Amino acid sequence: MRAVFHEQLSDLTGQLGLTCALTGEAMRQATLALLSADLVLAETAISKDDEISALSKDSEERAFALIAAGPTEEDLRAAVGQMQVVVDLRRMGALARHVGNVARRRHPLHAVPVDVHRQFEQMGEIAVALSAAARQALLTQNPVAAAKLQAEDDAMDALHQQLFSLLLGSQWQHGVGPAVDVALLGRYYERFADHAVQIGRRVRFVATGATLSQTG
Amino acid sequence: MRAVFHEQLSDLTGQLGLTCALTGEAMRQATLALLSADLVLAETAISKDDEISALSKDSEERAFALIAAGPTEEDLRAAVGQMQVVVDLRRMGALARHVGNVARRRHPLHAVPVDVHRQFEQMGEIAVALSAAARQALLTQNPVAAAKLQAEDDAMDALHQQLFSLLLGSQWQHGVGPAVDVALLGRYYERFADHAVQIGRRVRFVATGATLSQTG
Repeated sequence: MRAVFHEQLSDLTGQLGLTCALTGEAMRQATLALLSADLVLAETAISKDDEISALSKDSEERAFALIAAGPTEEDLRAAVGQMQVVVDLRRMGALARHVGNVARRRHPLHAVPVDVHRQFEQMGEIAVALSAAARQALLTQNPVAAAKLQAEDDAMDALHQQLFSLLLGSQWQHGVGPAVDVALLGRYYERFADHAVQIGRRVRFVATGATLSQTG
Repeated sequence: MRAVFHEQLSDLTGQLGLTCALTGEAMRQATLALLSADLVLAETAISKDDEISALSKDSEERAFALIAAGPTEEDLRAAVGQMQVVVDLRRMGALARHVGNVARRRHPLHAVPVDVHRQFEQMGEIAVALSAAARQALLTQNPVAAAKLQAEDDAMDALHQQLFSLLLGSQWQHGVGPAVDVALLGRYYERFADHAVQIGRRVRFVATGATLSQTG
């Protein structure tokens, strides 16, 4: 009975790891689409969100079934934690889709002026790294890996600040439309990062029994 | 045993209802602060988020204890649903805080030009109404009330679109800074509404056993 439970729990962990990898891949493609005004890549990133949604729906049902199996408190923490992680993964997929949508809407133009390409390139890299670290934390259930996520997130926040200084500084010469796009895009990357960090917190909750306090 | 469980479940529902009322109140105050450049109101809205966070943390622990009590499947759905609602309430509090932060940051200036005051006034009203409808759905566990949330959310989306047309139209004469504030503020209201709708979906999940499919 417990063996079956653990097999199912471990299957679900694998599926969440896969979903997490898809969020990173979607964000990588969406960022590339943004920087190279590539319509096909934008649409690939967007359709990845459908895949992430379908997997999330399935994961949610599986997590509920595990919770309903009446496991020990430790196993219950794991199943509840997984149910919560699904919410974050789903948002990460939606945020990558938002980035892809902006790239698609502006095509064949570039949505983002060249002056801020470097910032978006870096935010994209950090987002992908955060998704990979969240996946690692999930698969290893290692709270140390989870703590590392915070450092990457600080780098994201710094880039986000930099972006706003550029946007609101006297050097900005692209007018209101691109500024609005850039501001919202910055927010999407920042939120993507927050959700990855949140997954780390969930892992810590499972591993240590700490409360899920900061749901950011 | 079941009587005690139901009493605790009902206490928790009451606490979630109270938290939901606080999110509406915070958004009402933050909107007023935005439109009247009122620093005291901005800070009241911001500090309300601390209260919402503290209540959420407590609710999360209580929901977990209820889940761990090994209830029937129906009661389990209720407890899991409540645990998920906490995440939405927490975000609603954070989004009201973001609005309050913008008002505070721009004080003694108005963060939002007069041309878009009417839009923000209406978005504020809808946000408050959505929070009240979500509270109603929670307290009555009525999936019909939950369905009504969707209609209000459509009104919010329409206002959000209107805001962007103003922002990107030739009439906009306030430059980049206010445009960025307005775009991000619009996003905060839209997300606040999405989370209220999401609470309605959770109620439907509890009442009907439907999956939590769209976590928005």
